[in-house]
Parts: sequence; structure tokens; C-alpha cells
Amino acid sequence: MSLTIAYQGEPGAYSEQASFDFFGPNCVPQGKKLFDDVFDAVASGNADHGVVPVENTLAGSIHRNYDLLVRHQLHIIGEVMVPINHQLLTLPGVALADVKRLYSHWQPLGQCEHNLRKLLPTAERIEVYDTAGSAKMLAAEQRRDTAAIASRRAAAIYQLSILRESIEDDPSNVTRFVVLSRQPAPQMPASAKPKGYKTSIVFTVPNIPGSLYRAMACFALRDIDLCKIESRPVAGSAWEYFFYIDFIGHPDEITCARALAHLGEFASMLRVLGSYERAN
Amino acid sequence: MSLTIAYQGEPGAYSEQASFDFFGPNCVPQGKKLFDDVFDAVASGNADHGVVPVENTLAGSIHRNYDLLVRHQLHIIGEVMVPINHQLLTLPGVALADVKRLYSHWQPLGQCEHNLRKLLPTAERIEVYDTAGSAKMLAAEQRRDTAAIASRRAAAIYQLSILRESIEDDPSNVTRFVVLSRQPAPQMPASAKPKGYKTSIVFTVPNIPGSLYRAMACFALRDIDLCKIESRPVAGSAWEYFFYIDFIGHPDEITCARALAHLGEFASMLRVLGSYERAN
Repeated sequence: MSLTIAYQGEPGAYSEQASFDFFGPNCVPQGKKLFDDVFDAVASGNADHGVVPVENTLAGSIHRNYDLLVRHQLHIIGEVMVPINHQLLTLPGVALADVKRLYSHWQPLGQCEHNLRKLLPTAERIEVYDTAGSAKMLAAEQRRDTAAIASRRAAAIYQLSILRESIEDDPSNVTRFVVLSRQPAPQMPASAKPKGYKTSIVFTVPNIPGSLYRAMACFALRDIDLCKIESRPVAGSAWEYFFYIDFIGHPDEITCARALAHLGEFASMLRVLGSYERAN
Repeated sequence: MSLTIAYQGEPGAYSEQASFDFFGPNCVPQGKKLFDDVFDAVASGNADHGVVPVENTLAGSIHRNYDLLVRHQLHIIGEVMVPINHQLLTLPGVALADVKRLYSHWQPLGQCEHNLRKLLPTAERIEVYDTAGSAKMLAAEQRRDTAAIASRRAAAIYQLSILRESIEDDPSNVTRFVVLSRQPAPQMPASAKPKGYKTSIVFTVPNIPGSLYRAMACFALRDIDLCKIESRPVAGSAWEYFFYIDFIGHPDEITCARALAHLGEFASMLRVLGSYERAN
């Protein structure tokens, strides 16, 4: 039976691409309106897995998904890196001078900001909830005064023309997605190398000087490589933070297990979001 | 002569409030369309100062402004904390059941997310570039099927009714603004207490294990309290980061000066964005 994969967006979304990249061409991606809906679909069993973006090399972290990781009890079982190439799309035959309005999501707007200031300095920006959705909307409305920013696949699906190719400000534009599941990933095989794994955790520490420094010492003093640190405010506690760390390794290996136990000695909250094979 | 203060938004914006809070009722706030325009206005001398939000207790950091701090050579000369109370606004006489569309900016949408899912679960969300601007737009269009989220002051300016008061999900909703200038703040007076000051820095460290830990050691080993750490991707260098730290103290005091010199020994880039009196 095919696996159903919840993602945010419409067909042609980069998240749909990430679903195919991870689960293969036979999975069945299910587009949802909001990231919240993706988490809900997996938690309720309406989808087997979910795929959500957490970080882009140009625009930074997708904070909503960090917040949702804490709010839900799902597990990260994998990661996918998808190169992002944004196309400026219009109805066939439309010229740049005709474009007075631009549909897009804040992520591609941020990633194409400098090029857009040159290409379409005065076009009205209309933010929409989804990148591929902006292409779908443009195709449905058949407006000749409007452009959208979306993937090459979205252009094909919605029969739009590519007015300008690859308009991202920097070609090293990659988005990292995580794969969500109700069950944790299987144990690390005895033959596997721990450095081939990544572990994602979230924790809080008492709001006193040096707390975060001591948290990082648990890893640094054991030569464990941190690949990402992110902080998000704890709602209701002004200037307190959830810290998210990704480190190289797997708690089935003793050094990582000790680092986590050490952090647990003084963290007010600590949760392993998942340990999974590294992409690339 | 009155000081001119650039801020992002329309009259009634929380940033305009922050300008009055810091510079007093006689300053002349000038609304700009984009955060970029605020930085440009100060850099070019078209405005004396700028006021931009950098962090909200519920929604987290306003990353665009962190990026702009690096891109420009302005100085932070102060900070302002503004309590944020969002009102659900409509034309007079409109009832909740009439509301099919909702204008707002992603920041208030994020801060009111849970209440809005209860109040207006099916209303179409239309993102606009500015909070007070959404109130202005609604007043201009006179649409009876649409609501906006903005401040009490925006309701008064644009003659809208408050349909629901204080719809933020959490009452501890505060935004921290920084005040920008072409010149650094004056030296710390000899009589002042360094703990009454905050210093904001940005740096990069070589992408090797333990780099950030060593950076934090410069402060932790000298009992300097970090109040904020933020990372933002370096455009063009996948998975490399600018780190932003706010610490309590002033480099005119020897311990802080030594911490910065220590960090400078191994940071690939280090810039002091400003030292200024702490708010509250």
C-alpha cells in the first residue's frame, strides 16, 4: 500500500518534491493549507508521515515548525535537502512591463528580494499562504497584470510561462525538510557509523547567567559537533526560550547518551525530537 | 528643531508608538513602507533616527532587521519595550458573523493565532505589509465583510470599531525595538553602572566544532550575562551563520572590553552594533 505524506501547500510545492525525494515516486503526497494541518494529519493518523521545511540557507529558520515540534509529540525520522530554484511565472505572452502585481509567499519574496527590487520595483506585493498556491491562483484568475513566484514543476502543472528563470538572489538556495512520524525511527544498526546520524533535541534551561553555555559544554567537552542552534520564545514567559540543537551522532552511541544525560541534570525540560540518518 | 524618526508602517503602528516613547511627544515620526526604507532613510540623512522592532515575546525575532543591521553601518543607541495589545477592528456596526475576510500582517496573525482559530476559523486570511496599514486599507475600502488587527490608536485614527479587545493569545506580549543612528551613543558616564547598559554585537566564527561554545566562553568565564543569542544564515555560504549576542555591560568597562578582545582573537568577523542604556 502507498504511504500517504502530508505537506503544506498545493501540488508543485517544494514540500511535495521533498516528499517524493524521501519516500520515492509511489508515495501519495496530500497538500494541506497550514503547517498546523500537517502536524494534525500525522498525529491523528490521517497521514502516515508529514514533511515540513525547517530551514532555508537564505531566509533562515521556519519558526512556526519549530514551535509545532514542541506542541506535538511527533518524531523526526529523517531529513531531506531540496535545492530551491524560483521562477517568475505569468500567463503565456505577458511581458515584464505588463506586470503590476506579484503574488507570493514571504519565503520566496525574501529569497528573491534583491532581484525583485530590480525586476519589479513598483509591482504591488500580495502575500499568499503558499508558493505553488500563488501559481494556482494566477492560473485560475487568468490575470495578465500579475506574476507569481514558484517552482518549475508548478509552471508545468498550472500551464504558466516562465518569464524569468532562477530569480533567487543566491544560487546556493537549499531548504532542509524534516520527516515526521508517530513512531521514532528504528534503532541504529550495530554496524552503522554514529557520525552518519543527526539528533534533534529541544530544551529549556533556568534563566540564569551561563545556562546556555553550560548546555553547550555537554556537547563541546565531548567533541560532539553541533550543526544548528535555534531559540524560540516560550509563550507566556517573557524573554525565556526553547533552545533547539541538532548534533552529529546518535544516542544509541555512549558519548551522545552521556551528553544528553549531562544536559538532563540541569535542563528544566529536555526532549529528543528524533535521531535519523543525515542527508547527503 | 524636532527630530525626524523613520519607522515602518502607517500612523497608528506600534513602531510609531515606540518612537514617541523614546523621543517624546515632539518628535516627528515618518512612516516608511519597508524596514529597508527605514535603514536607508537614516543612512542617507533623510531622517535623524530610525526605530525598528527586533523581537517579540510571542512571535520571536524580526529577522529582516537583524539582516539589515549587518548590511548597514548604523549604530544602536537605545532600546524601547512596547506592550502589544491587538484589537479586532471592523467598520461600525459589523458583527462577527459578517466577517469573511481578515487583513493583517504575519506578526499579529502569529500572536493571535489561537484566538483567531476560535473567533474566525474560516475567514480568508489576507496578509498585508503592515499592521496599522491593514486598518487604513479597511477604512478606505469600507468593506463590511472584512476585519483588521491593529492597535487601539489605529482604531481611533481610522474611525473603526473595536469588535473584540486584546485578542493576543497571551497577555505578556511585548515588542523590543532598537533605535538607530548614524553616530554611536555617547560614552558611558564615569558615574554610571555598567549593568545599566546593554551591548549588541554580531560576529562570525570558523565553521568548526566548538566555535560558538568558545565564543560564549568569552562572556561566561567573565560572568557577563547574555540576554539574547540569535543566528542568521550568511547568504551565499550554506549553513554558515552570523551570530548576534546582546550582553549586559558596556565596553567602556574593562571586563566587557576584555571579553570583546578575547572574542576578536578567533572571530572571523566582529562588530559592535551599539552600547546603550537598558530599557525598564
